[in-house]
Amino acid sequence: MDLNFCKKAAAEKALSFIQDGMTVGLGTGSTTAFFIEKLIEKCRLGLKIQAIATSERSLDQARAGGIPLTDINTLQFLDIYVDGADEIDSQKRMIKGGGGALLREKIAAHMSRKVIIIIDESKLVQKLGQRPLPVEIIPFGSTAIIHQLHLLGYKGVLRLSPNNAPYITDNHNFIYDVQLSDDNIERAHAQITQIPGVVETGFFPSLTGPVIIGFYDGRVIVQ
Amino acid sequence: MDLNFCKKAAAEKALSFIQDGMTVGLGTGSTTAFFIEKLIEKCRLGLKIQAIATSERSLDQARAGGIPLTDINTLQFLDIYVDGADEIDSQKRMIKGGGGALLREKIAAHMSRKVIIIIDESKLVQKLGQRPLPVEIIPFGSTAIIHQLHLLGYKGVLRLSPNNAPYITDNHNFIYDVQLSDDNIERAHAQITQIPGVVETGFFPSLTGPVIIGFYDGRVIVQ
Repeated sequence: MDLNFCKKAAAEKALSFIQDGMTVGLGTGSTTAFFIEKLIEKCRLGLKIQAIATSERSLDQARAGGIPLTDINTLQFLDIYVDGADEIDSQKRMIKGGGGALLREKIAAHMSRKVIIIIDESKLVQKLGQRPLPVEIIPFGSTAIIHQLHLLGYKGVLRLSPNNAPYITDNHNFIYDVQLSDDNIERAHAQITQIPGVVETGFFPSLTGPVIIGFYDGRVIVQ
Repeated sequence: MDLNFCKKAAAEKALSFIQDGMTVGLGTGSTTAFFIEKLIEKCRLGLKIQAIATSERSLDQARAGGIPLTDINTLQFLDIYVDGADEIDSQKRMIKGGGGALLREKIAAHMSRKVIIIIDESKLVQKLGQRPLPVEIIPFGSTAIIHQLHLLGYKGVLRLSPNNAPYITDNHNFIYDVQLSDDNIERAHAQITQIPGVVETGFFPSLTGPVIIGFYDGRVIVQ
Protein backbone atom coordinates (compact mmCIF):
# COMPACT_ATOMS: atom_id res chain seq x y z
CA MET A 1 0.00 0.00 0.00
CA ASP A 2 1.27 3.48 -0.70
CA LEU A 3 1.23 6.43 1.65
CA ASN A 4 -1.81 8.04 0.07
CA PHE A 5 -3.75 4.83 0.48
CA CYS A 6 -2.92 4.82 4.22
CA LYS A 7 -3.98 8.47 4.53
CA LYS A 8 -7.24 7.85 2.65
CA ALA A 9 -8.07 4.82 4.79
CA ALA A 10 -7.54 6.80 8.02
CA ALA A 11 -9.58 9.70 6.61
CA GLU A 12 -12.44 7.40 5.66
CA LYS A 13 -12.53 5.88 9.14
CA ALA A 14 -12.80 9.36 10.70
CA LEU A 15 -16.08 9.88 8.84
CA SER A 16 -17.80 7.44 11.18
CA PHE A 17 -17.37 9.97 14.00
CA ILE A 18 -19.28 12.71 12.18
CA GLN A 19 -22.99 12.92 12.90
CA ASP A 20 -25.92 15.07 11.83
CA GLY A 21 -26.04 18.43 13.59
CA MET A 22 -22.34 18.60 14.44
CA THR A 23 -20.12 21.65 14.11
CA VAL A 24 -16.94 20.26 12.55
CA GLY A 25 -13.47 21.82 12.54
CA LEU A 26 -11.36 21.02 9.49
CA GLY A 27 -7.59 20.87 9.91
CA THR A 28 -4.93 21.41 7.28
CA GLY A 29 -2.66 19.08 5.32
CA SER A 30 -2.66 16.18 2.87
CA THR A 31 -4.46 13.66 5.10
CA THR A 32 -7.08 16.22 6.10
CA ALA A 33 -7.59 17.01 2.42
CA PHE A 34 -8.63 13.37 1.89
CA PHE A 35 -10.99 13.68 4.86
CA ILE A 36 -12.57 16.83 3.42
CA GLU A 37 -12.98 15.04 0.06
CA LYS A 38 -14.88 12.23 1.75
CA LEU A 39 -16.90 14.65 3.89
CA ILE A 40 -18.01 16.45 0.73
CA GLU A 41 -19.35 13.14 -0.63
CA LYS A 42 -21.19 12.43 2.61
CA CYS A 43 -22.74 15.92 2.69
CA ARG A 44 -23.98 15.32 -0.87
CA LEU A 45 -25.61 12.14 0.40
CA GLY A 46 -27.49 14.12 3.03
CA LEU A 47 -25.24 14.59 6.08
CA LYS A 48 -26.24 17.81 7.88
CA ILE A 49 -23.27 19.59 9.46
CA GLN A 50 -21.64 22.96 9.55
CA ALA A 51 -17.87 23.41 9.36
CA ILE A 52 -15.03 25.83 9.91
CA ALA A 53 -11.49 25.52 8.50
CA THR A 54 -8.06 26.36 9.90
CA SER A 55 -6.54 27.47 6.59
CA GLU A 56 -7.52 29.10 3.33
CA ARG A 57 -6.62 25.85 1.52
CA SER A 58 -9.05 23.72 3.54
CA LEU A 59 -11.67 26.46 3.43
CA ASP A 60 -11.46 26.66 -0.37
CA GLN A 61 -11.72 22.89 -0.73
CA ALA A 62 -14.72 22.70 1.60
CA ARG A 63 -16.47 25.64 -0.05
CA ALA A 64 -15.88 24.30 -3.56
CA GLY A 65 -17.34 20.95 -2.47
CA GLY A 66 -20.45 22.53 -0.98
CA ILE A 67 -19.85 21.79 2.73
CA PRO A 68 -21.99 24.29 4.70
CA LEU A 69 -19.58 26.74 6.36
CA THR A 70 -19.99 28.92 9.40
CA ASP A 71 -18.02 31.79 10.95
CA ILE A 72 -15.73 30.49 13.67
CA ASN A 73 -16.11 33.79 15.50
CA THR A 74 -19.74 33.01 16.27
CA LEU A 75 -18.82 29.76 18.04
CA GLN A 76 -17.88 29.06 21.65
CA PHE A 77 -16.89 25.49 20.84
CA LEU A 78 -16.72 22.86 18.10
CA ASP A 79 -18.28 19.41 18.45
CA ILE A 80 -15.39 17.73 16.69
CA TYR A 81 -12.08 18.67 15.13
CA VAL A 82 -10.32 16.47 12.56
CA ASP A 83 -6.70 17.06 11.62
CA GLY A 84 -3.43 15.34 10.74
CA ALA A 85 -0.06 15.51 12.52
CA ASP A 86 3.59 15.72 11.49
CA GLU A 87 4.75 13.48 14.34
CA ILE A 88 2.94 11.70 17.14
CA ASP A 89 4.33 9.62 20.00
CA SER A 90 2.89 6.82 22.11
CA GLN A 91 1.49 9.36 24.59
CA LYS A 92 -0.47 11.04 21.73
CA ARG A 93 1.71 14.12 22.01
CA MET A 94 2.29 15.76 18.63
CA ILE A 95 4.32 18.15 16.58
CA LYS A 96 2.26 20.04 14.03
CA GLY A 97 2.78 23.08 11.87
CA GLY A 98 4.78 21.81 8.91
CA GLY A 99 2.03 23.37 6.82
CA GLY A 100 2.21 26.65 8.74
CA ALA A 101 -1.26 26.57 10.30
CA LEU A 102 -0.20 25.51 13.81
CA LEU A 103 -1.76 28.42 15.68
CA ARG A 104 -5.22 28.16 14.10
CA GLU A 105 -5.03 24.38 14.45
CA LYS A 106 -4.25 24.72 18.14
CA ILE A 107 -7.04 27.24 18.71
CA ALA A 108 -9.52 24.96 16.90
CA ALA A 109 -8.37 21.82 18.74
CA HIS A 110 -8.59 23.61 22.08
CA MET A 111 -12.19 24.75 21.45
CA SER A 112 -13.36 21.26 20.42
CA ARG A 113 -15.23 18.72 22.51
CA LYS A 114 -13.49 15.93 20.61
CA VAL A 115 -10.25 15.94 18.61
CA ILE A 116 -9.63 13.21 16.04
CA ILE A 117 -6.17 12.84 14.57
CA ILE A 118 -5.76 11.00 11.27
CA ILE A 119 -2.33 9.86 10.16
CA ASP A 120 -0.45 7.31 8.12
CA GLU A 121 1.95 5.13 10.09
CA SER A 122 5.02 7.14 8.98
CA LYS A 123 3.98 9.82 11.49
CA LEU A 124 4.42 7.51 14.49
CA VAL A 125 7.68 8.27 16.31
CA GLN A 126 9.43 6.88 19.38
CA LYS A 127 10.57 10.36 20.31
CA LEU A 128 9.21 13.71 19.12
CA GLY A 129 11.68 16.03 17.43
CA GLN A 130 12.71 14.11 14.30
CA ARG A 131 11.35 17.15 12.47
CA PRO A 132 11.87 20.73 13.61
CA LEU A 133 9.48 22.29 16.11
CA PRO A 134 7.73 25.21 14.38
CA VAL A 135 7.64 28.36 16.53
CA GLU A 136 5.32 31.19 15.48
CA ILE A 137 6.85 34.59 16.27
CA ILE A 138 5.83 38.23 15.90
CA PRO A 139 7.72 39.95 13.03
CA PHE A 140 8.38 43.06 15.21
CA GLY A 141 11.73 42.45 16.88
CA SER A 142 12.09 39.01 15.28
CA THR A 143 15.90 39.20 15.14
CA ALA A 144 15.98 39.76 18.90
CA ILE A 145 13.35 37.06 19.52
CA ILE A 146 15.46 34.57 17.54
CA HIS A 147 18.54 35.73 19.45
CA GLN A 148 16.74 34.94 22.70
CA LEU A 149 15.84 31.49 21.39
CA HIS A 150 19.54 30.94 20.64
CA LEU A 151 20.53 32.07 24.15
CA LEU A 152 18.22 29.34 25.51
CA GLY A 153 19.88 26.81 23.20
CA TYR A 154 17.16 26.63 20.55
CA LYS A 155 18.77 26.94 17.13
CA GLY A 156 16.85 26.73 13.88
CA VAL A 157 15.97 28.45 10.63
CA LEU A 158 13.49 31.13 9.71
CA ARG A 159 10.95 29.58 7.34
CA LEU A 160 11.03 31.21 3.90
CA SER A 161 8.49 31.51 1.08
CA PRO A 162 9.36 30.43 -2.46
CA ASN A 163 10.40 34.06 -3.17
CA ASN A 164 12.94 33.87 -0.28
CA ALA A 165 11.10 36.40 1.86
CA PRO A 166 10.01 35.21 5.31
CA TYR A 167 6.97 32.93 5.21
CA ILE A 168 3.96 34.78 6.65
CA THR A 169 1.27 32.84 8.54
CA ASP A 170 -2.46 33.51 8.27
CA ASN A 171 -2.00 35.49 11.51
CA HIS A 172 0.65 37.79 9.93
CA ASN A 173 3.54 36.19 11.82
CA PHE A 174 6.84 34.42 11.00
CA ILE A 175 7.75 30.79 11.68
CA TYR A 176 11.13 29.80 13.11
CA ASP A 177 11.74 26.04 12.77
CA VAL A 178 13.72 24.90 15.83
CA GLN A 179 15.87 21.76 15.66
CA LEU A 180 15.38 20.18 19.06
CA SER A 181 18.39 18.65 20.72
CA ASP A 182 16.67 18.50 24.08
CA ASP A 183 14.81 15.31 25.06
CA ASN A 184 12.25 17.22 27.06
CA ILE A 185 9.89 18.79 24.52
CA GLU A 186 7.48 19.96 27.22
CA ARG A 187 10.25 21.94 28.87
CA ALA A 188 11.33 23.31 25.49
CA HIS A 189 7.74 24.41 24.75
CA ALA A 190 7.43 26.05 28.19
CA GLN A 191 10.75 27.89 27.89
CA ILE A 192 10.14 29.02 24.31
CA THR A 193 6.64 30.35 24.96
CA GLN A 194 7.96 32.47 27.87
CA ILE A 195 9.78 34.72 25.39
CA PRO A 196 7.73 37.83 24.61
CA GLY A 197 6.98 37.78 20.89
CA VAL A 198 6.66 34.00 20.70
CA VAL A 199 3.00 33.36 19.93
CA GLU A 200 2.88 29.57 19.99
CA THR A 201 4.81 26.40 19.20
CA GLY A 202 3.73 23.38 17.18
CA PHE A 203 3.93 21.12 20.24
CA PHE A 204 0.51 19.70 21.08
CA PRO A 205 0.25 18.04 24.50
CA SER A 206 -1.57 14.73 24.69
CA LEU A 207 -5.13 14.60 23.46
CA THR A 208 -7.98 12.61 24.87
CA GLY A 209 -9.53 11.95 21.44
CA PRO A 210 -8.91 9.00 19.14
CA VAL A 211 -5.93 8.71 16.84
CA ILE A 212 -6.70 6.88 13.60
CA ILE A 213 -3.68 5.29 11.95
CA GLY A 214 -3.53 3.92 8.41
CA PHE A 215 -0.84 1.22 8.08
CA TYR A 216 1.05 0.14 4.96
CA ASP A 217 -0.39 -3.36 5.30
CA GLY A 218 -3.93 -1.99 4.92
CA ARG A 219 -4.96 -2.06 8.56
CA VAL A 220 -6.63 0.98 10.08
CA ILE A 221 -6.40 1.22 13.84
CA VAL A 222 -8.24 3.58 16.16
CA GLN A 223 -6.24 4.23 19.32
CA MET B 1 1.81 70.82 40.31
CA ASP B 2 -0.39 69.27 37.65
CA LEU B 3 -0.11 65.79 36.19
CA ASN B 4 1.64 66.91 33.02
CA PHE B 5 4.26 68.71 35.07
CA CYS B 6 4.96 65.46 36.97
CA LYS B 7 5.21 63.53 33.72
CA LYS B 8 7.53 66.10 32.16
CA ALA B 9 9.78 66.13 35.21
CA ALA B 10 10.12 62.32 35.15
CA ALA B 11 10.73 62.40 31.38
CA GLU B 12 13.45 65.03 31.76
CA LYS B 13 15.22 63.00 34.43
CA ALA B 14 15.29 59.94 32.13
CA LEU B 15 17.37 61.93 29.64
CA SER B 16 20.37 61.69 31.96
CA PHE B 17 20.51 57.95 31.24
CA ILE B 18 20.88 58.41 27.48
CA GLN B 19 24.43 58.56 26.17
CA ASP B 20 26.13 58.95 22.82
CA GLY B 21 26.16 55.76 20.76
CA MET B 22 23.16 54.14 22.42
CA THR B 23 20.37 52.31 20.65
CA VAL B 24 17.25 53.59 22.37
CA GLY B 25 13.79 52.03 22.44
CA LEU B 26 10.89 54.47 22.64
CA GLY B 27 7.72 53.36 24.42
CA THR B 28 4.21 54.63 23.92
CA GLY B 29 1.93 56.97 25.88
CA SER B 30 1.64 60.50 27.22
CA THR B 31 4.69 60.40 29.52
CA THR B 32 6.83 58.81 26.83
CA ALA B 33 5.67 61.53 24.43
CA PHE B 34 7.21 64.11 26.78
CA PHE B 35 10.41 62.04 26.84
CA ILE B 36 10.55 61.91 23.03
CA GLU B 37 10.01 65.70 22.94
CA LYS B 38 13.01 66.23 25.20
CA LEU B 39 15.08 63.64 23.34
CA ILE B 40 14.44 65.52 20.10
CA GLU B 41 15.86 68.70 21.71
CA LYS B 42 18.92 66.82 22.94
CA CYS B 43 19.54 65.28 19.51
CA ARG B 44 19.40 68.78 18.02
CA LEU B 45 22.07 69.78 20.52
CA GLY B 46 24.33 66.98 19.28
CA LEU B 47 23.39 63.74 21.05
CA LYS B 48 24.27 60.80 18.78
CA ILE B 49 21.83 57.91 19.15
CA GLN B 50 19.65 55.68 17.06
CA ALA B 51 16.11 54.78 18.08
CA ILE B 52 13.23 52.39 17.45
CA ALA B 53 9.62 52.93 18.50
CA THR B 54 6.90 50.57 19.75
CA SER B 55 4.01 52.36 18.04
CA GLU B 56 3.22 54.39 14.95
CA ARG B 57 2.47 57.39 17.19
CA SER B 58 5.89 57.40 18.84
CA LEU B 59 7.56 56.63 15.51
CA ASP B 60 5.86 59.58 13.84
CA GLN B 61 6.82 61.92 16.68
CA ALA B 62 10.44 60.79 16.64
CA ARG B 63 10.68 60.98 12.85
CA ALA B 64 9.10 64.43 12.71
CA GLY B 65 11.59 65.64 15.32
CA GLY B 66 14.58 64.26 13.45
CA ILE B 67 15.67 61.49 15.84
CA PRO B 68 17.78 59.02 13.80
CA LEU B 69 15.72 55.85 13.43
CA THR B 70 16.77 52.29 12.77
CA ASP B 71 14.98 49.07 11.84
CA ILE B 72 14.30 47.00 14.94
CA ASN B 73 14.60 43.84 12.86
CA THR B 74 18.32 44.44 12.40
CA LEU B 75 18.92 44.50 16.18
CA GLN B 76 19.64 41.70 18.65
CA PHE B 77 19.24 44.03 21.61
CA LEU B 78 18.62 47.63 22.67
CA ASP B 79 20.91 49.51 25.03
CA ILE B 80 18.03 51.18 26.80
CA TYR B 81 14.26 51.24 26.66
CA VAL B 82 12.18 54.11 28.07
CA ASP B 83 8.45 53.76 28.60
CA GLY B 84 5.58 54.67 30.92
CA ALA B 85 3.22 52.36 32.82
CA ASP B 86 -0.48 52.27 33.65
CA GLU B 87 0.09 50.86 37.14
CA ILE B 88 3.21 49.91 39.08
CA ASP B 89 3.53 48.34 42.52
CA SER B 90 6.28 48.43 45.16
CA GLN B 91 7.93 45.35 43.57
CA LYS B 92 8.18 47.25 40.23
CA ARG B 93 5.64 44.91 38.67
CA MET B 94 3.45 46.68 36.13
CA ILE B 95 0.28 46.65 34.10
CA LYS B 96 0.71 48.21 30.68
CA GLY B 97 -1.29 48.27 27.49
CA GLY B 98 -3.94 50.90 28.07
CA GLY B 99 -2.66 52.42 24.83
CA GLY B 100 -2.82 49.07 23.02
CA ALA B 101 0.93 48.61 22.40
CA LEU B 102 1.60 46.05 25.15
CA LEU B 103 3.07 43.34 22.94
CA ARG B 104 5.59 45.54 21.14
CA GLU B 105 6.42 47.21 24.44
CA LYS B 106 7.07 43.83 26.04
CA ILE B 107 9.23 42.65 23.13
CA ALA B 108 11.25 45.90 23.26
CA ALA B 109 11.65 45.79 27.05
CA HIS B 110 12.73 42.16 26.91
CA MET B 111 15.45 42.87 24.32
CA SER B 112 16.88 45.83 26.27
CA ARG B 113 19.93 45.87 28.52
CA LYS B 114 18.28 48.51 30.68
CA VAL B 115 14.61 49.42 31.08
CA ILE B 116 13.65 52.83 32.47
CA ILE B 117 10.07 53.46 33.51
CA ILE B 118 8.85 57.04 33.78
CA ILE B 119 5.60 57.79 35.60
CA ASP B 120 3.72 60.38 37.56
CA GLU B 121 2.85 59.37 41.10
CA SER B 122 -0.80 58.54 40.20
CA LYS B 123 0.51 55.31 38.64
CA LEU B 124 1.80 53.96 41.96
CA VAL B 125 -0.59 51.33 43.39
CA GLN B 126 -0.65 49.18 46.50
CA LYS B 127 -2.08 46.31 44.48
CA LEU B 128 -2.08 45.83 40.72
CA GLY B 129 -5.48 45.44 39.07
CA GLN B 130 -7.17 48.79 39.70
CA ARG B 131 -7.35 48.98 35.92
CA PRO B 132 -8.18 46.03 33.68
CA LEU B 133 -5.43 43.69 32.53
CA PRO B 134 -5.20 43.95 28.71
CA VAL B 135 -4.99 40.54 27.01
CA GLU B 136 -3.96 40.44 23.34
CA ILE B 137 -5.79 37.65 21.49
CA ILE B 138 -5.84 36.25 17.95
CA PRO B 139 -9.02 37.26 16.07
CA PHE B 140 -9.46 33.69 14.70
CA GLY B 141 -11.67 31.91 17.22
CA SER B 142 -11.83 34.94 19.50
CA THR B 143 -15.33 34.10 20.77
CA ALA B 144 -14.07 30.70 21.92
CA ILE B 145 -10.88 32.21 23.37
CA ILE B 146 -12.96 34.68 25.40
CA HIS B 147 -15.25 31.81 26.46
CA GLN B 148 -12.19 29.97 27.76
CA LEU B 149 -11.12 33.08 29.69
CA HIS B 150 -14.59 33.13 31.27
CA LEU B 151 -14.36 29.44 32.21
CA LEU B 152 -11.17 30.30 34.12
CA GLY B 153 -12.98 33.16 35.87
CA TYR B 154 -11.55 36.03 33.83
CA LYS B 155 -14.37 38.32 32.76
CA GLY B 156 -13.86 41.52 30.83
CA VAL B 157 -14.76 43.46 27.71
CA LEU B 158 -13.50 43.36 24.15
CA ARG B 159 -11.79 46.68 23.44
CA LEU B 160 -13.58 48.63 20.69
CA SER B 161 -12.49 51.33 18.26
CA PRO B 162 -14.40 54.62 18.02
CA ASN B 163 -16.44 53.06 15.15
CA ASN B 164 -17.53 50.23 17.51
CA ALA B 165 -15.62 47.53 15.61
CA PRO B 166 -13.02 45.59 17.61
CA TYR B 167 -9.84 47.56 18.25
CA ILE B 168 -7.00 46.08 16.16
CA THR B 169 -3.44 46.16 17.50
CA ASP B 170 -0.35 46.87 15.39
CA ASN B 171 0.06 43.06 15.31
CA HIS B 172 -3.44 42.54 13.79
CA ASN B 173 -4.92 41.20 17.02
CA PHE B 174 -7.80 42.05 19.39
CA ILE B 175 -7.52 43.21 23.02
CA TYR B 176 -9.76 41.81 25.74
CA ASP B 177 -9.60 43.93 28.93
CA VAL B 178 -9.91 41.59 31.91
CA GLN B 179 -11.20 42.91 35.25
CA LEU B 180 -9.07 41.05 37.78
CA SER B 181 -10.80 39.83 40.91
CA ASP B 182 -7.90 37.57 41.79
CA ASP B 183 -5.14 38.86 44.08
CA ASN B 184 -2.50 36.78 42.34
CA ILE B 185 -1.74 38.54 39.09
CA GLU B 186 1.20 36.26 38.33
CA ARG B 187 -1.06 33.24 38.48
CA ALA B 188 -3.65 35.06 36.36
CA HIS B 189 -0.99 35.88 33.75
CA ALA B 190 0.26 32.27 33.72
CA GLN B 191 -3.24 30.79 33.39
CA ILE B 192 -4.34 33.25 30.73
CA THR B 193 -1.26 32.81 28.55
CA GLN B 194 -1.78 29.01 28.56
CA ILE B 195 -4.87 29.43 26.37
CA PRO B 196 -4.05 28.89 22.70
CA GLY B 197 -4.82 32.14 20.88
CA VAL B 198 -3.76 34.36 23.77
CA VAL B 199 -0.64 36.15 22.55
CA GLU B 200 0.35 38.14 25.64
CA THR B 201 -0.98 40.03 28.64
CA GLY B 202 -0.13 43.51 29.85
CA PHE B 203 1.40 42.16 33.05
CA PHE B 204 5.12 42.97 33.25
CA PRO B 205 7.06 41.11 35.94
CA SER B 206 9.47 43.13 38.02
CA LEU B 207 12.24 45.00 36.24
CA THR B 208 15.78 45.53 37.33
CA GLY B 209 15.98 49.02 35.83
CA PRO B 210 15.18 52.33 37.51
CA VAL B 211 11.69 53.72 37.93
CA ILE B 212 11.51 57.51 37.77
CA ILE B 213 8.54 59.02 39.57
CA GLY B 214 7.33 62.62 39.26
CA PHE B 215 5.41 63.70 42.38
CA TYR B 216 2.75 66.40 42.69
CA ASP B 217 4.96 68.28 45.15
CA GLY B 218 7.65 68.69 42.47
CA ARG B 219 10.02 65.97 43.65
CA VAL B 220 11.43 63.50 41.17
CA ILE B 221 12.62 60.24 42.66
CA VAL B 222 14.62 57.48 40.95
CA GLN B 223 13.91 54.13 42.53
